[in-house]
Amino acid sequence: MKALQADAQWKPREGYKPTERESRDKRASMGSDLFYHPSLKLVDIPVPEPKDDEVLLKVGGAAVCGSDTMFLGADEDDYLYYCGHCRLPVVIGHEFSGEIVRVGKNVKNFKEGDLVVAETMNWCGECAACREGLVNQCENLEEIGFTLDGGYAEYLVAKEKFCFHVGDLVSVYGSKERALEVAAMVEPTAVAYNGMFVRGGGFRPGGNVAVFGAGPIGLSATSLAKAAGAAKIITFEKEPLRMKLAKEVGADYVFNPDALYATGTSPSEKVLELTEGIGVEMAVEATHHQAETIPEIEQMVAVGGTIAQIGISPVRTPIMSTYLQKKGVNYHCSIGSSGHDIWPHVIRLIASRRIDPGKFLTKCYGLDEAIEAIEAAERLEGGKFVITPNW
Amino acid sequence: MKALQADAQWKPREGYKPTERESRDKRASMGSDLFYHPSLKLVDIPVPEPKDDEVLLKVGGAAVCGSDTMFLGADEDDYLYYCGHCRLPVVIGHEFSGEIVRVGKNVKNFKEGDLVVAETMNWCGECAACREGLVNQCENLEEIGFTLDGGYAEYLVAKEKFCFHVGDLVSVYGSKERALEVAAMVEPTAVAYNGMFVRGGGFRPGGNVAVFGAGPIGLSATSLAKAAGAAKIITFEKEPLRMKLAKEVGADYVFNPDALYATGTSPSEKVLELTEGIGVEMAVEATHHQAETIPEIEQMVAVGGTIAQIGISPVRTPIMSTYLQKKGVNYHCSIGSSGHDIWPHVIRLIASRRIDPGKFLTKCYGLDEAIEAIEAAERLEGGKFVITPNW
Amino acid sequence: MKALQADAQWKPREGYKPTERESRDKRASMGSDLFYHPSLKLVDIPVPEPKDDEVLLKVGGAAVCGSDTMFLGADEDDYLYYCGHCRLPVVIGHEFSGEIVRVGKNVKNFKEGDLVVAETMNWCGECAACREGLVNQCENLEEIGFTLDGGYAEYLVAKEKFCFHVGDLVSVYGSKERALEVAAMVEPTAVAYNGMFVRGGGFRPGGNVAVFGAGPIGLSATSLAKAAGAAKIITFEKEPLRMKLAKEVGADYVFNPDALYATGTSPSEKVLELTEGIGVEMAVEATHHQAETIPEIEQMVAVGGTIAQIGISPVRTPIMSTYLQKKGVNYHCSIGSSGHDIWPHVIRLIASRRIDPGKFLTKCYGLDEAIEAIEAAERLEGGKFVITPNW
Amino acid sequence: MKALQADAQWKPREGYKPTERESRDKRASMGSDLFYHPSLKLVDIPVPEPKDDEVLLKVGGAAVCGSDTMFLGADEDDYLYYCGHCRLPVVIGHEFSGEIVRVGKNVKNFKEGDLVVAETMNWCGECAACREGLVNQCENLEEIGFTLDGGYAEYLVAKEKFCFHVGDLVSVYGSKERALEVAAMVEPTAVAYNGMFVRGGGFRPGGNVAVFGAGPIGLSATSLAKAAGAAKIITFEKEPLRMKLAKEVGADYVFNPDALYATGTSPSEKVLELTEGIGVEMAVEATHHQAETIPEIEQMVAVGGTIAQIGISPVRTPIMSTYLQKKGVNYHCSIGSSGHDIWPHVIRLIASRRIDPGKFLTKCYGLDEAIEAIEAAERLEGGKFVITPNW
Repeated sequence: MKALQADAQWKPREGYKPTERESRDKRASMGSDLFYHPSLKLVDIPVPEPKDDEVLLKVGGAAVCGSDTMFLGADEDDYLYYCGHCRLPVVIGHEFSGEIVRVGKNVKNFKEGDLVVAETMNWCGECAACREGLVNQCENLEEIGFTLDGGYAEYLVAKEKFCFHVGDLVSVYGSKERALEVAAMVEPTAVAYNGMFVRGGGFRPGGNVAVFGAGPIGLSATSLAKAAGAAKIITFEKEPLRMKLAKEVGADYVFNPDALYATGTSPSEKVLELTEGIGVEMAVEATHHQAETIPEIEQMVAVGGTIAQIGISPVRTPIMSTYLQKKGVNYHCSIGSSGHDIWPHVIRLIASRRIDPGKFLTKCYGLDEAIEAIEAAERLEGGKFVITPNW
Repeated sequence: MKALQADAQWKPREGYKPTERESRDKRASMGSDLFYHPSLKLVDIPVPEPKDDEVLLKVGGAAVCGSDTMFLGADEDDYLYYCGHCRLPVVIGHEFSGEIVRVGKNVKNFKEGDLVVAETMNWCGECAACREGLVNQCENLEEIGFTLDGGYAEYLVAKEKFCFHVGDLVSVYGSKERALEVAAMVEPTAVAYNGMFVRGGGFRPGGNVAVFGAGPIGLSATSLAKAAGAAKIITFEKEPLRMKLAKEVGADYVFNPDALYATGTSPSEKVLELTEGIGVEMAVEATHHQAETIPEIEQMVAVGGTIAQIGISPVRTPIMSTYLQKKGVNYHCSIGSSGHDIWPHVIRLIASRRIDPGKFLTKCYGLDEAIEAIEAAERLEGGKFVITPNW
Repeated sequence: MKALQADAQWKPREGYKPTERESRDKRASMGSDLFYHPSLKLVDIPVPEPKDDEVLLKVGGAAVCGSDTMFLGADEDDYLYYCGHCRLPVVIGHEFSGEIVRVGKNVKNFKEGDLVVAETMNWCGECAACREGLVNQCENLEEIGFTLDGGYAEYLVAKEKFCFHVGDLVSVYGSKERALEVAAMVEPTAVAYNGMFVRGGGFRPGGNVAVFGAGPIGLSATSLAKAAGAAKIITFEKEPLRMKLAKEVGADYVFNPDALYATGTSPSEKVLELTEGIGVEMAVEATHHQAETIPEIEQMVAVGGTIAQIGISPVRTPIMSTYLQKKGVNYHCSIGSSGHDIWPHVIRLIASRRIDPGKFLTKCYGLDEAIEAIEAAERLEGGKFVITPNW
Repeated sequence: MKALQADAQWKPREGYKPTERESRDKRASMGSDLFYHPSLKLVDIPVPEPKDDEVLLKVGGAAVCGSDTMFLGADEDDYLYYCGHCRLPVVIGHEFSGEIVRVGKNVKNFKEGDLVVAETMNWCGECAACREGLVNQCENLEEIGFTLDGGYAEYLVAKEKFCFHVGDLVSVYGSKERALEVAAMVEPTAVAYNGMFVRGGGFRPGGNVAVFGAGPIGLSATSLAKAAGAAKIITFEKEPLRMKLAKEVGADYVFNPDALYATGTSPSEKVLELTEGIGVEMAVEATHHQAETIPEIEQMVAVGGTIAQIGISPVRTPIMSTYLQKKGVNYHCSIGSSGHDIWPHVIRLIASRRIDPGKFLTKCYGLDEAIEAIEAAERLEGGKFVITPNW
């Protein structure tokens, strides 16, 4: 089968000493420390065999995430850009959906023909964090699309325990194909959901919400805020196309922070003006620029409010804690999308038409055009780009 | 001014010994113990004078609550039916809105012409419960429409600290008059909100919700469940008119329990069927018949779910706690609507068109027709009936 | 090896139709429906072999639980008394500790010589409830001592993922033997912990707590309330020996409800008197007599308080929900002890000497005296009885 | 009567423009912006008259807080050091206790001879924050000891609604005098309590806790962690006297971070070593040096843990949010001690001997020695210093 595979040479960067686990498993905590001379190419590899507790999926859609763009090219020392957890070679693509074409012999709840999505973060279920229910903090995580072969391929395997039915989406989207394209976006929606409603504790209906960033996570957050009954949703974004999408998925107001600054105001002043000085009950941070957004958020978050930190930044964020203290604000930090019944909630939200990620699915590409899709994502040319390997 | 006043004679029922506080204040914990030979009549009384910390409202709308119907007629011993907290004579009507026509000299945040609603439960702010923030549990509660003159009148006074602006509703409803009619329904919506989102802790968007009862509280709960992102909302009600209204405010399914039983099924079987065996994340109890509804709820509530008990029943509810234990269910009990930033949240939900109580405002009546309005409510002839004393 | 085995004949009680799963697995949802002519005897069976993911334990201690007493004798129709989940024959004993004497080849975190306890409730980790983190609500539960061979034996096997180290207790109790005897009581302590701090949400330090029942769960609850900073702990119990133990583990006051009634007062009056009318922030129900205790609890629970329902009763509890509503009380229902990081918390509480279950370990018995130990528990002759098969 | 009064001249610092409210009320948001040529002297002023809703207290004890030291001397421009909310002249001293010697005519729950403490932060009860129950975020705060005359005086007045009985402490401490000296420390204990258990959401018994700082707040936090059942409590502090006190109030381990660094290790490494790599469920930040402590806390906080930010720093804290995200950590920010039933909980903790602030009451001073007491506090010569004006 065809698949888009990332590969590189295992060669610790000068000055970096791999941990014992890294050396043993050839799995990097930070890929950029260990993988030299990276490549990303369409290859021909065998269709995988599902194990007894696995299903084989014919991929319906695989959505492009910002992290996928970090497998394009190499840094100046010819090392992998991607600085996350990975083991190469690997077929990338971690936001995917598919139709089951074969089931392992112990599989009970799925059969051929079922349409499913699967959690990317394959948590072990046995470490201390998993036993506590905090599966996104699993100590032995494997990740489809990073350490296990992913969705930019005609087929992939997934363990039954990570799969969820999405057959209910067919009647929403009118065809199996379209349903699976949108279903590939369950994962990023679940990331936003985890940050806002699980780790972040949610907000109460009728509260105001601000969202920083209108990439796929920010757009998901905006649509979730709408579905959950936010009174006013104010989204901040700089890309015109994404600003437009934010409006379409539920933002009551969308501003470009730079445009605000240029006219002598600021995101926080705007929010306070629009909310009669009350501010927002929840501020969702979904950019990679916390140093820029947090000072604004500090000023606009309401008394007793919450900051849901979802965007990931490699640098320290300078927080003025006295501002948060004076207002009794909590800063809730999240990562991942697994467990906590998140995926079933997201799927039901789509199936009941409370949210529609399809609204920001900008374009579908064939598997042969996969690199092109990833490059479009890198150029931020819209919302989400989905690769559909089999049609 | 004209006002609908409830009156009666203070005469302890045979065998009942008033408490010291009751004797001192002539305020009954349970009106039916103490008030003999009750009457409910339109009277002519002076327009009240606002104190320094009060505003004088020209009433825009005053909605009829089930409890108001208990001031009609008398029981077989000629005692008041109403078994709640009251001090007579009193102008009834505790769900109201109005336009400010005068302000006391210490009033800061309101001025003549402002449109407002006011919390019915006048909490003291100084008892242990109030200082803890649990104002619905105030030890020194006064209640507009029960112990203080209420809204079935041309004018009433309210303390500034209980008032909230509703001017934002005018643009939603197109006129001041209609805005105030609907605003009179903030109070019952706030009762449902308190039960579901404050005491009940809410549910997560994408969860399924069942609502028992489609009177004003159940209808509010249904519309709030929709606004807060419930995936499937299943409402149970026996009155055909109310069943229809439940559908209009957001129920995905509405069933008459009797009709289900007649066809050999039950509310819980229906819910489990509609939710693929998962059940509901929150069940809202808004009837006076818990002994009938709770056994069904026990079967349909999901693992880890919540029962929000809002309906009030004078008899013990037999709960099969082992059923709730096996599923890790919590039974959350609430009363009242004050504090906790509830009213501002409800007002913003209406102002942002996330909910529209106007959908179940069945009919408006003049003040002269007040008794008629209350009798219509008693016959359950629809959703909500509102008295508009000044137009 | 010697083991105390419960056995019976699979023979559905007249009028009972086994479910499909029951017929297939010969596993009863309620043992009393299906197991005829029960016996409980010391047998000689082979030492079990640990599978790859299991450890073999030499049992250090196995504590007697009330449910074990239901395997003694038979009812009038010669059916098993025990009405819970079971599959016979089985070695009973579900509260146990031991020393690892062999490890399966995939076991990573344990080695020979380690002292451990293991969760009784073997949750699957793959059903919807488990994936949500609610492992006590696992749909595919197996239970050591009920469906898998348990601790009244010289040896037993347990999966690594259910094991926790207790080696830290040796320095607390001075010997490995004593440490393991007490460690056998981690399970009942964890049941109380789950009810109070996980499902029940805990209470704040300085809150008052009432505990109903001073059996092992009630005694655990009393000691946990003390460790967690309750201001006043008031325990109710009828057995004099247990009343004494309650005092020893931390109750500030212990009352026999019958004695209170006899003197014209009641548990709730007593609590209100001792707490200056405030009542208790948490009431722990750990009896089998909710119909008797709940009406008292309704009167004594504080505004905003919690009832933690842990005791299991086969009959409906009549709850006066209006009383709970007026005070904004929640009724939290729990079962089980697994997951949620409960066992590590309990072990650390013992290791740090914050609680000492040893204080109510009344007596140890050899395996040959196992029936005697269970009979002593049946007669409620103290706190906990522990069987020590290997010394 | 004698009183220690802070005074200064109202004269906006060059370049600072007072807000409208500041100009109107002569109340500074930040005293250092507005008060020139400050003084702090013992003066003779009339005994205040209690209003109808106030009580007159004969001061029993008034504890010195770090903020009091900022009224000593002046900065290089001869402006007040104190950068908080204040209105001068004012008698300082905001942590106090006393005996009631007169009551206003509307006072109901207190009488002459009652021993009481009173909330420092006089919240209005009417603003949006107060109505929501978030009284520490009151928009119209007055503060005893900063904007209202405080406790370094023979007498002061307090509103009834801010007072709490502490008569129960007499039997704990053996005399009224000693009870009142210790009662003066309820306020700082309540600050720690608010941060840890109200805003911070608490930790579960058996969790590990780290406390940074062993000033009065850190010492309170340490003793509260102990009372609430922390398994291991590890406190960090640099002053030897305070390190010793931390041990006495409950820390299992106390380290000087500098000493750790000097030996090639660090606070986080130490904590991970002592907790078997698990880390702390709650880290309490009670220093003014977050930039130094937070990077350590990031490494030592457990999966799913909480950072309770109580210490106040005038500079931005650089937080590495990805570290917190990977572990699903929340950063909870608090200020103040009022409302939420905090003071009654703290008083009951002392009355039930669960905590004893008296353990770090280093020394009592007469009112004539007040400056000396404040200077001792400035030199960090121990735990708490208390001024006892009337004995």
